[in-house]
Order: sequence, then structure tokens, then C-alpha cells
Amino acid sequence: MKQNIYDNNEFFQQYKALRARENNYNNLLEQPNFLTLVPALKDKVVLDIGCGMGGFAAACVNQGARHVTGIDISANMIATAKSLHTYENLTFEQAAFEDLIVPTASIDFISSSLAFHYIADFSQLIKKISVALRSDGILLFSIEHPIATSNKANEYSITDETGNILHFALDNYQNEGLRTQHWLVDNVMTYHRTMSTVLNTLIDNGLKIEKIIEPMPTDEAIAKLPSIQKELRRPSFLIVRARKV
Amino acid sequence: MKQNIYDNNEFFQQYKALRARENNYNNLLEQPNFLTLVPALKDKVVLDIGCGMGGFAAACVNQGARHVTGIDISANMIATAKSLHTYENLTFEQAAFEDLIVPTASIDFISSSLAFHYIADFSQLIKKISVALRSDGILLFSIEHPIATSNKANEYSITDETGNILHFALDNYQNEGLRTQHWLVDNVMTYHRTMSTVLNTLIDNGLKIEKIIEPMPTDEAIAKLPSIQKELRRPSFLIVRARKV
Repeated sequence: MKQNIYDNNEFFQQYKALRARENNYNNLLEQPNFLTLVPALKDKVVLDIGCGMGGFAAACVNQGARHVTGIDISANMIATAKSLHTYENLTFEQAAFEDLIVPTASIDFISSSLAFHYIADFSQLIKKISVALRSDGILLFSIEHPIATSNKANEYSITDETGNILHFALDNYQNEGLRTQHWLVDNVMTYHRTMSTVLNTLIDNGLKIEKIIEPMPTDEAIAKLPSIQKELRRPSFLIVRARKV
Repeated sequence: MKQNIYDNNEFFQQYKALRARENNYNNLLEQPNFLTLVPALKDKVVLDIGCGMGGFAAACVNQGARHVTGIDISANMIATAKSLHTYENLTFEQAAFEDLIVPTASIDFISSSLAFHYIADFSQLIKKISVALRSDGILLFSIEHPIATSNKANEYSITDETGNILHFALDNYQNEGLRTQHWLVDNVMTYHRTMSTVLNTLIDNGLKIEKIIEPMPTDEAIAKLPSIQKELRRPSFLIVRARKV
């Protein structure tokens, strides 16, 4: 069964509170890097997978996209997105991408921010994305970094007696698959895949890798949220842009 | 100054002894994976950078290459290579690739096994390789994995009181640059670069990534060399094949 953690009400309320904070890892680290890789969108057809509250999908409309579809498995998210963003050429739909019927070569730009690590079958996902993209179309996605997902559900940092992080632990990198962890609530399921699996899956499905970012916080971000400086030591996110060839 | 650790006689003797063992990380892990990515070599012009004792260069001749050049910065290595392998169309030369004059678009296949992590300026290296490759030519190289190089010169594993590895330490991943470590002798210098730096440098120089391998030991390799099973937890090597486009 597909995980739909964002329709767990306790999780959703906590998640909304987290994102509502002005300074969080999304705003300070993931999004600033992700946005540098968005292609020109004038007259383009866009699909945002795991659109959440719809902010990025709405921004694509504002960048001149012809039509933008945001999908999310969570009814909570889709209801919130619809309440926040209304445009004639913006559609929000509660759906898992796996279940969506997408015409072949119909989309110019597929984006996904921090959602693919919830999906069990990455190979099927990328295959379907590749079919959906037009020739020369772009896939841009971010996931939790393989270095970070490898040790979920295990102690992932080794601290001294005062709580300073001495080392991050890495122990299960080559062991791909489910990691169950506590994040806001118990039993959040993410899937660990190695860097080579992620990138080879793209290549094997006709997607040419154009750019990889392992985001680092700026000095400004560290000033706003000191804890984010741990990202100078170990990346939490991986951002990849690839082109259908 | 370029490092030439293989002309340190103590190092070279120890290295030869290590490689002479039937079961080592090169034979059991790196080479079997590296060799799966070697292209067809019939009538091709080949350059092997950091050719060591010349075994791979000689194998390329046996695979039908038109001409193979093996270069190595170490006089010890080149002398050994010349003593072991003699073919009319095989040349060994003591040289650093940085200093070599290579005609533009003159080479079909450039290989390098576990040498690039000794080179300080990766960007210049890859730029020069890209210029030297013919259109559609292949670069195949292995390096120490960024996960492994990041914590060189620091404790890289956390063990329990009986010496079992609980976790591998990762702490300086985003801090690229020189790592000085003890390996056979003191003060062996390697350069840590992140995965994104390695791959983006290829892409930025017109090389299309075709395949990435983070080698895992086979059951047979583990039976021959039990210590190698740590590779099931943390990769030591990274192998990349890319094509000049």
C-alpha cells in the first residue's frame, strides 16, 4: 500500500507548523538550490509530483507555463493547495503518480521536491516519467541524500558528552530499501537507494544527467538557523536535473 | 609539486607485496567491476593514466587496440611495466598527464584505475581529457569513493570494545581538498571531492555520464577475503564511465 503519511492528522498539523516557520531546511537549503535548476517555463506543460501545498505549482503558472498540474497523494495537501492557489491553468488532483494516466510525450517539465524517497519502486517511477516527458523535456527532483537515508532508523550521529556531533554514522549504504523512522510521528517510511542506483536508473530510462547539487547552507542561512551548519559536514538533500534525450 | 609516492621505495615495496597477494581489493572488487565497462577496443587508440605495472594497458593490446600508451608518474612503476610487457604497439612513459602533450581528439579510450584521487586539480584534468578524446570516445575511471575519502586522516570507523565496526564515520563530506593519511607509509596525499563535484565536472566538460558503479563484493570475494565484507556497508570505490559528446 502506498504511504499517505500527510493524511495522518497529527503528522500534518506538525508538518504545517514546521513549514510555517520562516526559517526551515526547505526555505533555507533545498528550495534556493532547487530553483536554480528550473528551466524556462513560458508556454510549457508542467507536472509537479508531490505538490504539497501547491506553492511551487503556482509559481510555475506565474513563470508563464501554459498549464500546471499538481498532484499529491494527500487529501489534506490538495485541499490546502486548492484553498491557497486559484488559476484557470492550474489543476490540483489527489492522486499517486503511479496511478495517474499520463499521455506519452505530453509534458515539458516534471518537478518533484522531496517526495521520491517515499516511493517504493523508483525504477517504475522513472520509467513512467520518461514516457510522459517530451523529447528534450526536463525532470528536476530533490530527495533525501543517500548518505542521509542510509542510516535512518539507526543512530545517525555520534556525539560527545555535551551533545556536539563528532561524526555522522554511515553503516548501511549498500543495503537499499525501506527505512522506518520517527519524524514528527512514528513509522514514517522512506526508501534508501544508493547514488549509483538513482543515477543509473535515470540513464537507463533515457534521461541525460545535467546537474547534481548536494546543497550547502549559505552564511546567511546559518545566521538564521544555526543548526543548519551541520549541512557543511553531511548533505541531507540531493537535487538532480536530467533531460529526456 | 606533484606527489610521486610510488617512487618512495618503502612505499613501493609494500605496495608490490600488497598487489602480489592473490586476494586484494583491486583483484576482488575494483577490477571485476571496472572491466565490465571497458568498451570494444578493436583498432582503438588507448591511453591509460596511472598505468602502474602495466597489466591493464597490456590487456588492451590483447583486446585488439591499435596502440596503447601507459603513463605513470613513478619511475618504479614504468620500469616494472616495461620489464613485464613488451608489444610493438604498447608504449610506457614516465609522465604526469598534466605535463603530457596530447593532440586534440586523438584518443578513443582513456582509462584510469585508482589514480585520479592523487591529482589536485580535477577540473583541469577532466578538461584536458575531454580535449584529448575523439567524439564518442570513452573515459572510464575509478577513484576512492567520496564517502571514503571524506574522513581520511580522521577516525573513519567507530568500533565496539572487541573491534567490530559499529558505524563508519562521515564528517567532512562537504569540505573538499587534501587529506593526508597513513597508507603503507605516512603522508600519503589524496584529494577529497564530493560526488556532485566529480559528476558535474564531467558534464561541464562535455562528457555524458553513462554508468556509475559503487562496487559491492561478491559472496566468492568475501569467502576469499573476509574483511572485504565491510564493503557491503560502505563503498570504498567509485567507478564512472562517460562518453565525449
